[in-house]
Parts: sequence; C-alpha cells; structure tokens
Amino acid sequence: MSMPGRIDVNEEGPREGFQIEKGPIFTADKVRFIEALAETGLHDVQCVSFVDPRRVPGMADSAEVARLIKRRDGVRYTGIFLNQRGLERALESGIDIRAGVQVSASEAFSVSNTNKDTAETLAEQRTALALYAERGLRLESAIVMTAFGCNFSGVVTPERVVECVAMLIDVAAEAGQAIPLVRLADTVGWANPVGVARVVGAVRDRWPGLRLGLHLHDTRGLGLANALAGLQLGIDSFDSSCGGLGGCPFAGHGEAAGNICTEDLVFLCHEMGIETGVDLERLIECGRMAEAIIGHRLPGKLLRTGSLNALRGS
Amino acid sequence: MSMPGRIDVNEEGPREGFQIEKGPIFTADKVRFIEALAETGLHDVQCVSFVDPRRVPGMADSAEVARLIKRRDGVRYTGIFLNQRGLERALESGIDIRAGVQVSASEAFSVSNTNKDTAETLAEQRTALALYAERGLRLESAIVMTAFGCNFSGVVTPERVVECVAMLIDVAAEAGQAIPLVRLADTVGWANPVGVARVVGAVRDRWPGLRLGLHLHDTRGLGLANALAGLQLGIDSFDSSCGGLGGCPFAGHGEAAGNICTEDLVFLCHEMGIETGVDLERLIECGRMAEAIIGHRLPGKLLRTGSLNALRGS
Repeated sequence: MSMPGRIDVNEEGPREGFQIEKGPIFTADKVRFIEALAETGLHDVQCVSFVDPRRVPGMADSAEVARLIKRRDGVRYTGIFLNQRGLERALESGIDIRAGVQVSASEAFSVSNTNKDTAETLAEQRTALALYAERGLRLESAIVMTAFGCNFSGVVTPERVVECVAMLIDVAAEAGQAIPLVRLADTVGWANPVGVARVVGAVRDRWPGLRLGLHLHDTRGLGLANALAGLQLGIDSFDSSCGGLGGCPFAGHGEAAGNICTEDLVFLCHEMGIETGVDLERLIECGRMAEAIIGHRLPGKLLRTGSLNALRGS
Repeated sequence: MSMPGRIDVNEEGPREGFQIEKGPIFTADKVRFIEALAETGLHDVQCVSFVDPRRVPGMADSAEVARLIKRRDGVRYTGIFLNQRGLERALESGIDIRAGVQVSASEAFSVSNTNKDTAETLAEQRTALALYAERGLRLESAIVMTAFGCNFSGVVTPERVVECVAMLIDVAAEAGQAIPLVRLADTVGWANPVGVARVVGAVRDRWPGLRLGLHLHDTRGLGLANALAGLQLGIDSFDSSCGGLGGCPFAGHGEAAGNICTEDLVFLCHEMGIETGVDLERLIECGRMAEAIIGHRLPGKLLRTGSLNALRGS
C-alpha cells in the first residue's frame, strides 16, 4: 500500500505532559500552551483529563483550563476521563468529548493499570456507551492498549489484538454504535516495524474497511521507525505529543519515553511529501514554550536543531 | 527488495566520541572501552584518528591507545587519517587500516570542512591510493559525504551522488583498484526515508552490483527511520556509534546529534529478525561504560530502558 497524502495528527502533549510533570504548572501556562498549539494548524488537542485530583494533582485545574481556553474555530479541545463521574465533570466543563472505548490486549497490564480484568473493562465500556447514548455522543474511536507487547505478559500476538478489536466492535454494536477508527497503542514501547505490519495486517484481514490509527511511544528509540512502517501501510491517523511531552524521566526500571514527538513526526511526514496541515516552525516554538513552562529539556530532536526549512532556502 | 538476513555494523563510537568530548579522557579508559566493545561481537571498531593533535587534542594519544589494546581474533581495530602524514602514523602504530577514498557531494561542505574543493579532494584521493599501493593495501570502501543534503548548499540531488560515485570509481580505477563498498553518508542530518530510497535507487540503477552502506546521523530524529528505509532496500552495512557517542552538544545552530546509536540499531534489527552478530546486553553495558567515562548522558534510548530480552522471558 502506498503512503497517505495527508495524515491526521492528534496532539496529546498538554494532557500527557501536565499530568506527569512533578512541578506545579500554572493554569495560565497550560492555557497559553494549548492556545499556541491550536494556532499551528493542529485540529485536535487533548488538553486535560478529568481524573481523581488526589491521584493526579496536576489535573486538579482541568475545569478551569477548559473554561479559560480562547477557542479557535475548527479546533477540538478534548479532555479524557476514566469513569462516569469523570465524563460528567468533562461535560460540565464544556471541553470537547472524544467518545471512545478501550481495552488492553494484555490482561496483566489492565489489572495493574486500572485494577480491572478484561471482562470488567468491557463492562465499563458498556457503561460508557450508555452514557454516550444518553448524551447523544457518537463513538469516535476505540483503542487497543499494549497492542504490541507488555512488560508483564510479554509478547502480544496479532490474534489477540484481533480478538480485542472484535470485543470492542461487539460491545459498541450492542449499543447500536459502529467504530470509525481503531487506534493501536504501543503503550510501553514494544513495537517494531515488522510487528506493526503484522498487527495491522491481521486486523485488516478481518476488517478490510476499518480505519486504523497508531499511538506510538518512543521508549526504545523505534518510535519514528514504527511511524514510518505505519505510513508505508497507509495509516493516516497518529497520536503524538509536542516536544515529546509525557515522558516519565525516572519511572520504573528506567526512563520511559512518552508518545512520539509531534514536531519530529510532522518533520518526517513533510520531508516525505505527506501533508499534516501543521505549521512546523510554529510547532517547534510550541515545544520550546513547553520546555520553558516545565523547566527542563524535552526529548524532541527538532527542538535542538530546528527543521530544514531555513537551510533549504540557501 | 526484502530486508537482509544479517548486517555488518561498523562501530565508530570510540573515535567519534573521544574526538569530540571536551574533558580529558584517560588513555586507559579509551582502551578498556574499545576492549569491551570488541567483546560484544562487533568485528570492526574504529578506535582512533591520526590527525593533528593541535587541532584535535583528544586524539593526541592515538598511537598509545593503538599500542595498549589487547586484541581479539576476528576483530579489526581501525584508525582514520586525513593525509599522508596521518596514514604513516597510523601504519607505524600498528592499528588496522581501512583503506578508503572519499568525496563530499556538497562542494561548499568540502571547502568548509577540509578547505579543499572537489578537484583538490580528488587529487588527495589519488595520493592516498598511491600510498595504499605502496603499502599493499586493498581499497575497502568509498564514502560520499553529505549525500542527502548540506547546511550550506541545501538539497543534494541523486544525480550529484551518482556523479560523486562515478568520480571515486574512476579515481580508484586509475590506481587499478575496484571499490567493494560505497557508503552514503548523511553527514549533517538531511536524509529522510524517501530520500534514502531515491539516492540508493539512483546509484543502483547505474551500478546494479555495487554494495552500498549507510552512514546515518540522528540530527533530526530520523536516524532509525532512515536505517529502516535502508534495510527495506536490502542495505546490509551500517556505521554507528555505541551510546550515540559523537554528538556535539552545543555546536553551531543547535545541538547536532552524532551517528545513530549502535544499541538502538542492533535492537531494531534483532526485533525484526535481522542478525548482527552482536550481544545486545553487553553492548548496552558498553554504552553505560561510555557514559561513566565521559561523565554525561548519551542519547541512546536503550541505555535508559534496556532491551526487551529480560521482559520477554516473563
């Protein structure tokens, strides 16, 4: 399959970054960063999460952030949530809702991350779907977490990913909804380009018309190589984080990098003639703003070197 | 073309790293790092360079390093040189010589880097070839620098790269030598996967049987995506640096990363079923040794997270 002419970039930097950073970050700084991102041409910016502020203090001001953002037409400012209470708070805040369902391919990861096994997770998705129906929200995407492997249970087979997608399609169908986009997530950095092709191939064999997206982490340096593999398969929806925000510098057995960096992904695409609708130079400035706000360096490479646009002119 | 079953990894970390680091590095530390690399299964380790010690003080002890290395069978310990005096010092030191010829696709880069234009560079290659003949050295490779673009002259066309390869083949032929391997170098981080395919394709169209290698830098984050593109084209020879040694943290207009990181390249290959002959776990330990020796962090990702080998067992 040939590469897409254009991709959708779903920016997750504000939510990923402000959730994980240690230092207190001023609400006004969050708002100006989100507003700057929305000026780059990004059309979907994940801003906040409505989770328990005792567990994630950095997100305690989510409603305030949602209230303060000066919105641009054509940009969605989304918030995430983990349960009914979170969804209600998100709706109250006026943030855009990306109605979704999710499951983890690794049950061990699911239990460790959310204290729920697969059956319990699916039950929770049914509750979410009922809430979406009540609020008139159409399902936008499903996500399969740890779709390429898991630190607890090891390798994840393509067959298991197909099984997970089938479960989500069934749960959605029970609620009278179809899934327009399935995002395959390399939650803990196990993917490689051959594995991406295998998993994407297996899901497409079963549902040839289903749109797929990739949510990639750069944990072990293969983030953009995996993105390239996805592009070569015609994948046209990617999640990423400005500057590579969201890395967890001193967590667990090492330093887990976050999502692939938006600027670097956009650079990869533009250099290969793939459109993103994003102004790369403004986006790099956003990454530098993020570094100034959080007070330390981010992993994005273009933050250090700049793009080739200025050099190409000479 | 399908991916190769096995690649050659040419390790350049010691020379790249010790040349560029500010702090004085003990000769004994260089030697133990080189010896550790040689125990990983790497069969070609670029150790030192015989350049003017007034210009590159970090390489003043090259002869001493060459003398002290305890050698393993089957491993080449190579040194580089820029002129006749350098080659003579290298030969005296007993280091292995990788007889090569080189030219820069960008003449502006050539002048800036070596103060020689293309004609002068070719004259220099003739001198080198005469010296190789005198010493009975067979030509091992040719390198085309800035084969994908240059900060001074911008985009480099595939036609220009073909022209450069032709010039080197001609110069070698005058001396009665053939070129067994042409290494295409992304000296300043301009390559992208589509560009790699274009340049490799153009060179192969002209010389279908010629073996090609890639020398990639990770300046703008595309290093491993470009390596993947090369692997997909059947390229089976790569230059890289343990830990990503050789980056220039505060040079020029930003922070220029060095060669792609050997561990990360080996990880990419192993995860896709491509053999390298290298023990990845030992190699990661070498990267950590390099960090301890130079006293600061290196860009390699596996240094932070480790490979997946231990996790896969569980």
